[in-house]
Amino acid sequence: MRDVAIIGTGQIPVGEHWDIGIRHMMLEAGLAAMRDANIESVGAVYVGNMLSGEIAGQAHLGALAVDFMGLDNTEAFKVEAACASGSAALRVGYMAVGSGLLDLVLVLGVEKMTDTSGRETTAALAAAADAEYEVSQGISFVALNALLMQRYMYEYGWQREDFANFAVTAHANGANNPNAMFQRPISAQTYLRAPMVASPVGLMDASPVCDGAAAVVLAPAEYARTLNLAPVRIKASAVGMAPLAVHDRADPLALSAARTSSAKAYDQAGIEPGDLDFFELHDAFTIMAALSLETAGFAERGKGVQLALDGEIGLQGSVPIATMGGLKARGHPVGATGLYQVVEAVTQLRGLAGANQIPDAHLAMTQNIGGSGATIITHILEAMG
Amino acid sequence: MRDVAIIGTGQIPVGEHWDIGIRHMMLEAGLAAMRDANIESVGAVYVGNMLSGEIAGQAHLGALAVDFMGLDNTEAFKVEAACASGSAALRVGYMAVGSGLLDLVLVLGVEKMTDTSGRETTAALAAAADAEYEVSQGISFVALNALLMQRYMYEYGWQREDFANFAVTAHANGANNPNAMFQRPISAQTYLRAPMVASPVGLMDASPVCDGAAAVVLAPAEYARTLNLAPVRIKASAVGMAPLAVHDRADPLALSAARTSSAKAYDQAGIEPGDLDFFELHDAFTIMAALSLETAGFAERGKGVQLALDGEIGLQGSVPIATMGGLKARGHPVGATGLYQVVEAVTQLRGLAGANQIPDAHLAMTQNIGGSGATIITHILEAMG
Repeated sequence: MRDVAIIGTGQIPVGEHWDIGIRHMMLEAGLAAMRDANIESVGAVYVGNMLSGEIAGQAHLGALAVDFMGLDNTEAFKVEAACASGSAALRVGYMAVGSGLLDLVLVLGVEKMTDTSGRETTAALAAAADAEYEVSQGISFVALNALLMQRYMYEYGWQREDFANFAVTAHANGANNPNAMFQRPISAQTYLRAPMVASPVGLMDASPVCDGAAAVVLAPAEYARTLNLAPVRIKASAVGMAPLAVHDRADPLALSAARTSSAKAYDQAGIEPGDLDFFELHDAFTIMAALSLETAGFAERGKGVQLALDGEIGLQGSVPIATMGGLKARGHPVGATGLYQVVEAVTQLRGLAGANQIPDAHLAMTQNIGGSGATIITHILEAMG
Repeated sequence: MRDVAIIGTGQIPVGEHWDIGIRHMMLEAGLAAMRDANIESVGAVYVGNMLSGEIAGQAHLGALAVDFMGLDNTEAFKVEAACASGSAALRVGYMAVGSGLLDLVLVLGVEKMTDTSGRETTAALAAAADAEYEVSQGISFVALNALLMQRYMYEYGWQREDFANFAVTAHANGANNPNAMFQRPISAQTYLRAPMVASPVGLMDASPVCDGAAAVVLAPAEYARTLNLAPVRIKASAVGMAPLAVHDRADPLALSAARTSSAKAYDQAGIEPGDLDFFELHDAFTIMAALSLETAGFAERGKGVQLALDGEIGLQGSVPIATMGGLKARGHPVGATGLYQVVEAVTQLRGLAGANQIPDAHLAMTQNIGGSGATIITHILEAMG
């Protein structure tokens, strides 16, 4: 399989886009990525999305995307893996270009979650869990994460306030990202005073419901090298899986799919965790950030929170996370999130991250989680410049 | 890219499976394909499905499939392209194996459409069309096809009864397929007397709402050759696209995506239409069968119906279609249909089609249509024995 590179990125600001439809969101992010790559056509468009059928009554997003973007007769379909849909679509694009079947592929992530009531959106999101064994009991996605956080606190003796720095760091970084949904720093006090959603998950432990679209253009690395831009190589693409229902996992706090996914990615890339300059992890909830740090090899079991307490997750820390705000502050438009992570990582690796730039960033990891840990997709990206 | 072969197939009977859930359907078809291939694990499972989120409140089908099948920690996600979802998933599997990234891949198509009221299912299916410009006007999927059929009859002077043989042939073939939903032959009288659904589409012009699951196992052709079975090579995989909304197409009856999709497939396989032993086309509606025959090069424009009138589409005809009943009689569980077509084509190419066997079948084409012609995916399959 030949090497694959990212030669263009595009995104729209994350927020509540009541004035435009899902097709406009795809158009803006997709064409931005193609302009960035300086191309006018692609061989295929793969769309990561979870909820457009449920929320907008619109399936068949691939056809809609190429139709509205004016990409006549261009192969397109949707890829879905709950909140990991964006990374799953990236993986399909990676295979299409890597196989030699196609040369240029646009991978697009999109989600529009604010056109329905909160209750409807919460119900739609619950479809990422096991409908027959979890959702039928009335549990929501936040509640599943609350159970994990509660157990974690019980097992390892942490208090709620120990998680504050995950939210504080994300918001501090989001403040310098014009595409972030929340661009105001918060204090630990704000974290503590925030209303409870599902104990112990407070409002500041959880990422927001929002709309967003982000995209990248893929090309063979050999070709990318000839271009007058700073391409980024996809050095690893790896998937880990665990039982869908949390109660079916032998050890829910092990987040076994993340451990496999990270280990496979390190192996493919031939690197160790310490080689990474930063880690765009899936902080949909603070508990997920803690577990991801542990399973990726940055902390012992039960010690992920310590990295936040010690400030190691900040831009100057040993393992910067959520460098442009993460899911918490940039936002978590579910099917688009995996692409926002990659777009932001590429921005860092190109040295274009402005006030949030990680000095000499060369090697990055993105990790996208579907269904409180059932599908975990990891990519390692390397600056080719 | 290396050659890819199909080394196992599985299916469950198409019907109304009120007694089992979508996970059981995936399990039965998936494990049947793995048993047929004589393997106990795969590198990935890609699931073609359109409606599980809308109908069962269950997204994240990839994770559910590997979980319930006991395929621990096996990569899986869903691929969606409306009624062409099954073939889109096959194409992803083809890229995964062809690229060298994975050796064995299970591609599974599944749809459960009968657990909701007819009205709800019709509304969910309409999501394959343009939600903002078509569905918002109250048009259903049957109505879109009725407009196409009406226009075709007006342009070329055909009568409703001229389409009868599409349904008669499908039901005659379905009678010998134990997995078909309808296993009784019908007469032209039955076709004519059937109730009207959306004029001129009568009940016998339309494929049924139903449940089904079908699967194939993919492997590198080099490896397949060493096995003690009759593998089938994927000789071409091609996608054609057209604007999503029918009114946006310059010439709706041209079914331009089918023309591109077929032409690309012939080109890749290095064959001409006349080289094919049979053609598993997408007869979701009789009008689609007629248009598919024309765009695939078996008839001039406006003359597809003549092939049915002349009996050329039967098992002994020049271009046998729907050899195991097609969408009309075997049934059209939308996300599974593309896989049923491929499973049946492989059955023919292995010489295992029983009473419906096409003598010396060596080369077959399957074509799967999403959204009344927006996404059209074609595969050409060749017996390797």
